[in-house]
This record gives sequence, structure tokens and C-alpha cells, in this order.
Amino acid sequence: MRTVTILGATGSVGTSTLDLVEREPERFRVLALTANCDVGRLAAAAIRTRAELAVVADESCLPVLRDALRGTGINCAGGAQAVEQTASLNADWTMGAIVGCAGLAPILAAVKAGGTVVVANKEPLVSAGELILDAARKSGATLLPADSEHNAIYQCLDHDRPERVRRIILTGSGGPFRTWSAEQMARATTAEAVAHPNWSMGAKISVDSATMMNKGLELIEAARLFPVPHERIEIVVHPQSIIHSAVDYVDGSMLAQLGPSDMRTPIAHCLAWPDRMATPMAPLDLVGIGRLDFDAPDPDRFPALRLARHALEAGGARPAILNAANEVAVAAFLGGRIGFLEIAATADHVLGVYDPAAPVTLDSLLTIDSDARRLAGERVEALAA
Amino acid sequence: MRTVTILGATGSVGTSTLDLVEREPERFRVLALTANCDVGRLAAAAIRTRAELAVVADESCLPVLRDALRGTGINCAGGAQAVEQTASLNADWTMGAIVGCAGLAPILAAVKAGGTVVVANKEPLVSAGELILDAARKSGATLLPADSEHNAIYQCLDHDRPERVRRIILTGSGGPFRTWSAEQMARATTAEAVAHPNWSMGAKISVDSATMMNKGLELIEAARLFPVPHERIEIVVHPQSIIHSAVDYVDGSMLAQLGPSDMRTPIAHCLAWPDRMATPMAPLDLVGIGRLDFDAPDPDRFPALRLARHALEAGGARPAILNAANEVAVAAFLGGRIGFLEIAATADHVLGVYDPAAPVTLDSLLTIDSDARRLAGERVEALAA
Repeated sequence: MRTVTILGATGSVGTSTLDLVEREPERFRVLALTANCDVGRLAAAAIRTRAELAVVADESCLPVLRDALRGTGINCAGGAQAVEQTASLNADWTMGAIVGCAGLAPILAAVKAGGTVVVANKEPLVSAGELILDAARKSGATLLPADSEHNAIYQCLDHDRPERVRRIILTGSGGPFRTWSAEQMARATTAEAVAHPNWSMGAKISVDSATMMNKGLELIEAARLFPVPHERIEIVVHPQSIIHSAVDYVDGSMLAQLGPSDMRTPIAHCLAWPDRMATPMAPLDLVGIGRLDFDAPDPDRFPALRLARHALEAGGARPAILNAANEVAVAAFLGGRIGFLEIAATADHVLGVYDPAAPVTLDSLLTIDSDARRLAGERVEALAA
Repeated sequence: MRTVTILGATGSVGTSTLDLVEREPERFRVLALTANCDVGRLAAAAIRTRAELAVVADESCLPVLRDALRGTGINCAGGAQAVEQTASLNADWTMGAIVGCAGLAPILAAVKAGGTVVVANKEPLVSAGELILDAARKSGATLLPADSEHNAIYQCLDHDRPERVRRIILTGSGGPFRTWSAEQMARATTAEAVAHPNWSMGAKISVDSATMMNKGLELIEAARLFPVPHERIEIVVHPQSIIHSAVDYVDGSMLAQLGPSDMRTPIAHCLAWPDRMATPMAPLDLVGIGRLDFDAPDPDRFPALRLARHALEAGGARPAILNAANEVAVAAFLGGRIGFLEIAATADHVLGVYDPAAPVTLDSLLTIDSDARRLAGERVEALAA
């Protein structure tokens, strides 16, 4: 019986995790569920799974949650502090699926408490990678990645012998503008940018897929997660997104993980790890798929790839700055204030003007993050003027 | 330091194994090398690797071997008995690469002695599968498969949790007649049949690839090797032969092994297992390869697939009969005595007229093998008449 806490239980990843947890009640016992303020879904999930504790990050939502759980015997709490304390409760298995910077403190608390901690967002490892990894080394926590590429690498990696890895092949669909020229991309609309070919995702991450910043941030995340020198991590464009990533060994063997474009497969891998559990997905039909294609990424048309590689090489605060500036720039693009090519250009600008020392605490990281956002905002204003 | 014996050291697999062993002399120490009668290569390899023992199966070649090794301190011996005794010497690692029925007794002796035994040919597991597996259970020997498909499955399988496997995907190139009609195949020449698209192989196995009997025999071999019900082993045609096979799990994850069409990769995997070792192969270039295709096999055009599936389901002596009859029929085709479509038809005929009890000893198996060969020979005579 594995005790489970889901930080961010009402979002897409949290809901998928709950779906899997509820399929095997004899295997998983829910300790705690958290949400920002979606009390309806949170309370319903807590009641269905007989959770011990339900927590809202937004304290103003606590009274409604309390009402919803009255008489159920389920404890409830509210506020960012309460979410962090919940993360420290030392569940056997914690899903960290809180979006954005709000998720950093809770996931760090979970890692410090030990056990298995699943990372479902890029921010923790891109922006606070050193802090998280350091905490994991000290507590002995096991970090498992839930996004499909890193989960694929995790499944293919010989964790006892990383020195036998020749290359990690991080695959990416290439996004909706894979075959577009820079001139075409300069005129891209938001509707065109959010039309991801294989995955149904939110607007922010869809735009990241279109700029390939998503793949750049995944490159940084992979370099944090896996003990392989970052220059051995290669990006390969694979439009069908069937091979989620691969690991190439010194003997010439390449191991790849293939799967459906459904987060439940990597989440199920993390949930049952090192065992496996059934999911409702149909078996992958290679014959029906027919063919898989591969192409080299083009850092000229997709400068985000180069920015990410440079940020990774330089280390320190630079990945956090890249991530923060990109977020502001994507929001500005989605708001119609800057053009598509100006997303990467904005991040490039902020990286050029801002070079603080490496953050050694979560507080110094959050300061860097907010400085980078302010500088990106100023740049957006200048561009939009 | 791992002690190594190579049974069949002068053939293609044996030579590749030696090539790898000699790259890491601090890791591997050669105990014994055997050959049929290629004294020149055998003696040279024994001297280069400072083997303790060199053995020829053909006793008439022993005097020449003795001369070649005079003064080197390397012991030598000759005869089938001597090969079998050599296999029993309990090396840490034994490569079983003796072609045909001559390899059965030596590999069985190696398995009985324990240690790691690598199976590089189909005969041992197709014809004598139960005997070999039973011996391995008793001695605790580890069987590792060196042919690329089964080695790929071995690398992708969670050996501790075979019940979590949904399907094994056994890939095959489809051979040179993948897109040919039955009418075209009826007129196929030997030159056309031996022109394998991806691998450079001997004539017999190339014809097996053209009939897809090769894939059928591999299906039987996979069912022997892996604790997965045989109806869960699927064959998928994959013309580029880059994905060597895959394992599909209950959670929707499919793990695949990709690699070059070079036996040194799977042999190196077996040699260093559970570690890995470097090989001289260039890294797999997915971008250069560009695309991978998949198609369903057609058991109507390739009846060998159906014969193999039926032989596997029926078990007992039937895989051995299929293998023996096929060998005779392929030889007859290569000799210009029967047509291409008559290869599978000959095997089908022998399976129809001969149904002995399951062999329980190596002797009874060898009797069945020779009976099946005689019956196949008679059928060939009738067809050629």
C-alpha cells in the first residue's frame, strides 16, 4: 500500500493521476490533495478517494472547502504555508503538479521530506534545479519525471551505469511551424501558434512548442535529471511524437520508449514504479501508424534552442532567467502585443542585460525570477510601443 | 575478469565475438576456442588471445592444429566428444555459435555446467528448446540471446515482472520479397532470394528471410526464451531493420531497441552483460536514416509464418520437424531442384505426414530431426521429378 499526495490535484496532470490512483484502491491510499481554489473538484476527489486531507492554496477558498467536506471526516486547510506543510507530510509518493513558481516551495518541501517525488512541470528543475537536486541528495528522495520525454529517458536509462551512455536523444515534434520559414513565422497568429499537431495542451506550452522553447527547457531539465554531460544530449525532430525519447549506449544499442500522446502512460509509470500498472490506453499500433520520421532541429529558425543550450552551459541563474522572460514574452504574444519571433528575442534581450549571481536559496531564486519578469515586461512595452 | 569460451570461434559470430573480446583483454580471459576444422584461424586466434585450449570438432584436423600450436603452451584436442567436454569446463561466459545440429550437444553441455551461455543460432531453442530450458533451470545457467531481435527483446524486457508485458513486438524486414505477389515469388531465382536488403548473411538464412521462415523460427525462439504467452508475440514488418524488436507494457509504454545491422552490438551486449562495453560502431543516426516504416505481415503470401505459429502452438516435436524439413527444402531450392514456394510447401507436407511424440532426450530429438530430413528429401525428389 503506497500513500499518495497530489500537489495540484485539479489540473490536467492531477486529474490524470487521480484517474489512475482510483483504478487500484488496494494499491494506493490518498494522504492529501491540494488545489489552488477549485473547491468543487478538490472536495469531490477527496471524498471519492477518502483522502485524509484536502488543502487549498488560496486561503479565501477555505470556508467553501470546509463546508463541502463537513461530516466527511476529511481534514482541510488553506494557504501557501498549508500546501508546503502538506508536501512535507512524507507520503510514500508525491505528485508535484502545481504550475509556475507557486509550485517551487511545495515541491522542495516534498523533496526534503524524502520518498518518491514526481516532477510534472519544467519550472522546478529548470529554475530551481540545483536546489531541488541538492535537497534530494540530502534526503535520499527519488525524483521521477512525469513529462513524456524525460519519463522516456528515465525508462531507457541504466541508472547504475550512466557512464555507458553515449547520447541521450531528446525527441520533439518540431511544433506547428516545423516547416515554416522565419518570414512566415514572423507573421504567425496566436491561433496558428497554439495548434499543436500531436498533444492537446494549454496555450502557454503550445506556444513554447511552436518556438521550440519547450524543447530547449526540456534540454535543461534533462541535463539536471540525468547524470550525463549536457553536450551528449541531442535534440531530434520527430513529427509523429511516437518515440518519446531514447538513450544510446556505447555498444551501439539505442533504447527508446514509444507510447500514445497521453500523459497517463508516463504518470502510471511513475505511480507504479518500479513496478507497472494497467492504464486504459489502447496498445500502440505501429502498423496503423505506418511510419516515423526524423529530422535535425534548425537553431536558426528556432533560436530558442540556442538560447536554452547557452543558458544550460552557463548555468547559475541563466536557466531561471530564460524561463521567466519566456513566460512574460509568451503572454505578451498571446495578448497580441508582440510578434512570434519577438518571443525568443525578448528572452535573448533579458539574458543580455541581466546577469546576477547563481541563486543559493529559494528566496534569491524568486528575486531573480521577478527581476527577469520585470525586465521582460519592460522589453515587451518597448517592442509594443 | 570473465573467463570466456567460444564454441564455433571461426564463423561469423565467433569472429565478431573474438574481435570484441580482444578489445578488452583486462576484462576477458579466453579459456577455450573451438572450430570445426579451420585450423589456421583457430590457432591464430588461440595464440593472439593466449587461450588455454583450442579444439577442432573434426578429429582428422587435430594433427595440423597440434603442429600449429607447438611451443605455445596452448592445449589442443579433437573430436565431437572433446568439443562437448570443452563446453562443460564451466567458463563464466560461453558463446554457443556452432551452426546446425552439431551445436546441440555442446550448448546443452554448457548450459548444464552453468554460468552465462549465449545462444547465437536458432536450432538449440527451436528444436531442443525444452531440453535446453530444463537444463538451465536445473543448473541455474543464464541464457542470453545474441541474434538481434531476441537480444533487443531481452534488453527491453523487465525480467522481474514479465506479467506486466502486454505484447512482444518481433520486427522483421519482410525480406527481399516483401512486396512481391505469390505469382512473382513462384518464379523467384536463388539470386533474388539471397539478396537481403539490410543484413549480409549466409545463403540459407537469406532464403529463410525471403520465405519469412526466419521470422517464424524467431517467433518460436522468442516463445521459448521469454516468459510471455506465445499469443502475445506479434510480428511486425519493418523494412529498415532499425528497431530490432520491442516490448509493450500494460501501462502503454513500449520499449524498443534500435541499432545498426551489425552483430557486434548484440554480441557486445551479451559479453558485457549486465554491464556494457564499447564497440567500434558509429552511433545510430536517426536523422540520416530519416524514416522508419511498419506494415503487417501477410501469412497468405508467406505461409511459413502460419506453419511456425502452428508448430509453436502444438509444441512437442513440431518445431524441430519444421526446422529440419525447412533446411532440406532450402538446400533443394538453392540447388535449383524446387521452386521458391515449394520450400514452405515441403515443410508443410512433412508436418502433415509425420507426428512423433515429443522428444525427451537429445538422442530422440536427433532421431526426429533425421526422420524429418529424410521425409523432406523424399518430398523434394517427388517435386523435382
